Amino acid sequence: MKLVYLDNAATTAIDAEVEKFMQKCQLGLYGNASSIHKKGREAKEELEKARKVIAKSIGAKEKEIIFTSGGTEANNFAVKGVAFANKGKGRRIITTKIEHECVLNSCRWLEEQGWKVTYLGVDGKGFVSGKELEKAIRKDTVLVSIIHGNNEIGVIQDLKELHEICKRHDVLFHTDACQSYTKAELKAEWADLITLNAHKIHGPKGVGALYIKERVKISPWQHGGGHERGMRSGTENLAGIAGFAKAVELAVDDKEGKKRMAKLRDCLISELLKIPRTTLNGPRGERRLCNNANVSFAGVEGEGIVAALDAKGVCASTGSACASRSLEPSHVLIALENNPERAHGSVRFTLSRYSTKEEVKYAAKCAGEVVEKLRKISPLESERER
Amino acid sequence: MKLVYLDNAATTAIDAEVEKFMQKCQLGLYGNASSIHKKGREAKEELEKARKVIAKSIGAKEKEIIFTSGGTEANNFAVKGVAFANKGKGRRIITTKIEHECVLNSCRWLEEQGWKVTYLGVDGKGFVSGKELEKAIRKDTVLVSIIHGNNEIGVIQDLKELHEICKRHDVLFHTDACQSYTKAELKAEWADLITLNAHKIHGPKGVGALYIKERVKISPWQHGGGHERGMRSGTENLAGIAGFAKAVELAVDDKEGKKRMAKLRDCLISELLKIPRTTLNGPRGERRLCNNANVSFAGVEGEGIVAALDAKGVCASTGSACASRSLEPSHVLIALENNPERAHGSVRFTLSRYSTKEEVKYAAKCAGEVVEKLRKISPLESERER
Repeated sequence: MKLVYLDNAATTAIDAEVEKFMQKCQLGLYGNASSIHKKGREAKEELEKARKVIAKSIGAKEKEIIFTSGGTEANNFAVKGVAFANKGKGRRIITTKIEHECVLNSCRWLEEQGWKVTYLGVDGKGFVSGKELEKAIRKDTVLVSIIHGNNEIGVIQDLKELHEICKRHDVLFHTDACQSYTKAELKAEWADLITLNAHKIHGPKGVGALYIKERVKISPWQHGGGHERGMRSGTENLAGIAGFAKAVELAVDDKEGKKRMAKLRDCLISELLKIPRTTLNGPRGERRLCNNANVSFAGVEGEGIVAALDAKGVCASTGSACASRSLEPSHVLIALENNPERAHGSVRFTLSRYSTKEEVKYAAKCAGEVVEKLRKISPLESERER
Repeated sequence: MKLVYLDNAATTAIDAEVEKFMQKCQLGLYGNASSIHKKGREAKEELEKARKVIAKSIGAKEKEIIFTSGGTEANNFAVKGVAFANKGKGRRIITTKIEHECVLNSCRWLEEQGWKVTYLGVDGKGFVSGKELEKAIRKDTVLVSIIHGNNEIGVIQDLKELHEICKRHDVLFHTDACQSYTKAELKAEWADLITLNAHKIHGPKGVGALYIKERVKISPWQHGGGHERGMRSGTENLAGIAGFAKAVELAVDDKEGKKRMAKLRDCLISELLKIPRTTLNGPRGERRLCNNANVSFAGVEGEGIVAALDAKGVCASTGSACASRSLEPSHVLIALENNPERAHGSVRFTLSRYSTKEEVKYAAKCAGEVVEKLRKISPLESERER
């Protein structure tokens, strides 16, 4: 059976070129980048090359890029590191109801430690209101953290506008750009801190980065030997970092990639919406991640659809992969419209640069069959008919 | 020029078999281990296989192994996670003056947050005294963290004895076993928490694990999607974890490896001690890591020796790689004997399973030449002659 992998927001297949390059680094550049001998210097040189690639991709300075073990670590570091470094100014943070769990749970942990957190709501398409953000800012607010491209419904926030508001009130602005990086326009100047990662763009798992604008006050969160200019200790995962940079180069070089994905996304959305009683979650067009389609099928459970699609060789998900073993409705969909039924019936299909029209058509066809079949046996449906 | 890599305590070259296996996982098992579809399940299966290998290697249960991004993260997690989870009982921690920077700096950070930390001294060979440990324990002590095999001078502590003391006083006991893992006997029953890592044993960088005995009270430190049974969030670095397990299997299978290294180590130490006015740092025999030789050459600077050895193709270091760009004398050697000159003149040579007698002889010969030459031009030496 052919496998159609449409869960690229959960993670992507590594690019063969990235893997090849990582292997070369792994075998050849095995030194510790902190060592002063030849093997150390070789590793250090490749490390700095990688940093240059990442910095350039968002228009940052090299010293503003700190490598981490992934997006989750970078988000923990940004939120907690800024909170602890700015305790003197205040203990208030603003975020949204549609953040990834690693930002939400970092904030919840800070609440246990005495911080106050405001969770902004969103409109029906998932947009955060600049006006509401501005209203929520207090004198003791030190950080605003808002996701750039949402991992579930693909809505892209206007970072520039949100950052302007934060600047006016002298509040640091962080954005989690794990899903949008290389898929939507992203500039260092639009935020004070930006979370990036590798495994959503055909790079390796276990690698990410945090952009920290010069002079931003942040405490290191992982302490030790003082790697990464003292900001993040731990022997650098050189092969992973080099693979990350290679993945970024390939994504940036594929200038038509975003357009191609957006076209396929729209094709997928329109095919899915042909299935009766199906609604799109999140906005359409430019303000939606080019690889995201998320729909709700009335009268059926997302989990059942995903399992039935899996049996037909189609990999999709109900929401974020992290939450996929829980049966709770998606917190993101609940934030959009407090409709648990709609949240329970949602399925996310996410494309990659390598997805094809044939795959998209096949997935939509399978979804139609599966939904029809499941509706026939759904208790929600029989209730509806009564 | 032939390269003689004798800095295996900083990091090791990846084993070709490990790299090959990682490549297979990277390309084939690219799913997110949290996803419920086929690609997710495949990844999850390999993840649990790896967990089994690590657990078995120290006689732990599978659910007691939590994967991390390396030894530094595992040490941060152990120290801070236990501290925060047991705040209600007390805010006192005991550690030693010869810990790796990641434990020391985690403790220093906790001090800034209001914890009290006792840093135990060691004797002239680097041993921690059980009596002194027992004397230092207070009612509000919640954690003792003592390194198993020291990264600089190779001294191996008696975990069993130290753990017994902690148990008697109902205090949790953590050990950093990054250097000793698979190189010295190590049993889960000797501690409540044990830090392990991959890149010191020919595995990949960026992967480690924390053994957490069942029912030990510890707070997650990296928050997010609830991976690793809620203990450590972040998409699992499957290829890295699989490579870690493969490296452990290879190390465990090489039953003669430890003996071979110990023999080579003793040969290296005896060759180095033939150089006039050279002293061994740390103990001899069974209580020293089988791959560690650390000596002080009177009248010369370690940095100069390492640079001159590098020019002859020998990779060695002055102390830990992390601190190698600083010119401060090693905190470990200062703890042994408060003699900055001896600390400044120290060089560490660390072997791997693949080191040869020829390499060891060559390194010692080069060291002799280099020391003789440097002593001739050393300001310390001309002072001595006056």
